[in-house]
Amino acid sequence: MSLGEFELIGRYFSGKDKGQGVALGIGDDCALLKVPQGMNLAITTDTLNEGIHFFKGTDPYLLGYKTLAVNVSDLAAMGAYPYACTLSVTLDEATPDFLEAFSQGFFDCAKNSSIDGATLPLIGGNTSKGPMSFTVSAYGLNKTGKAMCRDGAQVHDDIYVTGTLGLPALAVALGYGEFSNLKEDFKELYKLSMMPKSRNHFAYLLSDICSCAIDLSDGLCGDLKHILIKSNIGAKIELSSIPYPMYFREHDLSDDDIFKLALAGGGDYELLFTLSKDKRQELIDIASKTSTLVTRIGEITEQNGLIFTSRGKIISQKFTAFEHFYGGNEYSENSF
Amino acid sequence: MSLGEFELIGRYFSGKDKGQGVALGIGDDCALLKVPQGMNLAITTDTLNEGIHFFKGTDPYLLGYKTLAVNVSDLAAMGAYPYACTLSVTLDEATPDFLEAFSQGFFDCAKNSSIDGATLPLIGGNTSKGPMSFTVSAYGLNKTGKAMCRDGAQVHDDIYVTGTLGLPALAVALGYGEFSNLKEDFKELYKLSMMPKSRNHFAYLLSDICSCAIDLSDGLCGDLKHILIKSNIGAKIELSSIPYPMYFREHDLSDDDIFKLALAGGGDYELLFTLSKDKRQELIDIASKTSTLVTRIGEITEQNGLIFTSRGKIISQKFTAFEHFYGGNEYSENSF
Repeated sequence: MSLGEFELIGRYFSGKDKGQGVALGIGDDCALLKVPQGMNLAITTDTLNEGIHFFKGTDPYLLGYKTLAVNVSDLAAMGAYPYACTLSVTLDEATPDFLEAFSQGFFDCAKNSSIDGATLPLIGGNTSKGPMSFTVSAYGLNKTGKAMCRDGAQVHDDIYVTGTLGLPALAVALGYGEFSNLKEDFKELYKLSMMPKSRNHFAYLLSDICSCAIDLSDGLCGDLKHILIKSNIGAKIELSSIPYPMYFREHDLSDDDIFKLALAGGGDYELLFTLSKDKRQELIDIASKTSTLVTRIGEITEQNGLIFTSRGKIISQKFTAFEHFYGGNEYSENSF
Repeated sequence: MSLGEFELIGRYFSGKDKGQGVALGIGDDCALLKVPQGMNLAITTDTLNEGIHFFKGTDPYLLGYKTLAVNVSDLAAMGAYPYACTLSVTLDEATPDFLEAFSQGFFDCAKNSSIDGATLPLIGGNTSKGPMSFTVSAYGLNKTGKAMCRDGAQVHDDIYVTGTLGLPALAVALGYGEFSNLKEDFKELYKLSMMPKSRNHFAYLLSDICSCAIDLSDGLCGDLKHILIKSNIGAKIELSSIPYPMYFREHDLSDDDIFKLALAGGGDYELLFTLSKDKRQELIDIASKTSTLVTRIGEITEQNGLIFTSRGKIISQKFTAFEHFYGGNEYSENSF
């Protein structure tokens, strides 16, 4: 592409840089953010690469949406108020159709993930030539001392998740030719998996009463393990409480498949958090206020390790299976 | 690569996340930065792709160095105090040798670009599988109202640059087989071009007396044009004042080649800034304190446009030549 074409790309992403915290938006060497007193700035960054994080030929609208969504999901995991973002786009070639749809998806997500109804400001970025890749950094505000961290779980806390688990994993499995009897639904499921629901408003309110959360990107088993290690505690999870989509039963998926997808599949971008039992009513109020489905799935234990129960009965062999499924995946991304 | 190998990558980049502003470093869903009262947070992001921003096979130490250097250069352009950074690494495969050298280069730059002698903290990032690409976001502090912006130039301001211009452009030209009589020096010149000098300390002090700067990434002509347009003014540049390396004369480069490289080549990552004449002594003190070579190359004019003079005589045909050289480049990156 020539200079002219690359200059054009910028136009699709400019003009959406206004916001209460933006002292200087797009167009200089840096953007400038105001950070109010008593707040910390939460920072996260994630990359999506073609063929790794999304299938070649994916609808550019969905690409734009998910590129931002996986990052604001990390803000939700901290209970941060979404504040701004930057975007780096690498493309071999860019047609106006592609850019139009990609930017539409990106800004739709920017609107859906903001709390005040405005669009999350895009305050900078760059476009380069190369194999398709997108990197977003997202910025949020946390009241000092109120971030939900992985080391904040306490013994006897209840463990909750938002939404339902497993549909994105099924979409990816379909894309790889598994579950071939369901193939006719791939497009619709894949679309849902690329547009995770924003949990930002819920999470921001939750951060006042909760000190431990993570977003489910790698699957419940793997992500819960981060909390258990960092908090130096254990957990007991009741399988019959795991919320999975109606779709799974309607399409006669086996228990084994359902729990593999829901516990080890990944890509849900729902929240997992732990909460003191005496905060339950406050949680219900926040969930109701933000129309968020919340399910209690277990409890934090003093003894280290992760135990699964089925209607109260320990089934450790199941745990091993999920663990193996997770650990055995060829997994190609790692945050640090 | 398997999960295990990707987890290993993170280890090369962890443990360097301590700093006065870091409330929470690597290892959670987000990092948390403290931003002192009276300060704004400057944010910039840049991507380097193989074959576009660096030659295939480039020494990984130099890649690590430059990946961060181009970003802290943007902080310098704002006069921001370097505060923290994040790094996204995409690699097809990663050997320990590559990662060791890359991270060494990255952290050497992090040390060289910090002002307080500590290493600029790396507070987060991610590693993914895919064609080689690196995206850094860098964060700095600006006293409120003290950022050096592109729209801050005033009529009769003097125009200055730091360092010398053109050597990185020559290195790239050599890499493409031009200037073939100099080819034996390619490696050493390329190394210099990948390790631009940090202007961060100089720039941070300068921001107290200067309100307009830009870093020279696209070549002086192109970058100065950003200032002229944003500030709605013009400039007169004296060719005989342009600081270029001794190397050019020692190797008998023609005037034409010298000025093309120095004015239109790009990749210098030096600072161009404008300053009120009555601040000259303060500038000299700052330059001396930070051992920074500073050269006055011209003056801001009321009349729009860019005029070149040679020993005071206007040579507009030269300007057109440089302009064309710049505009005619197949340029593959664009910040917005």
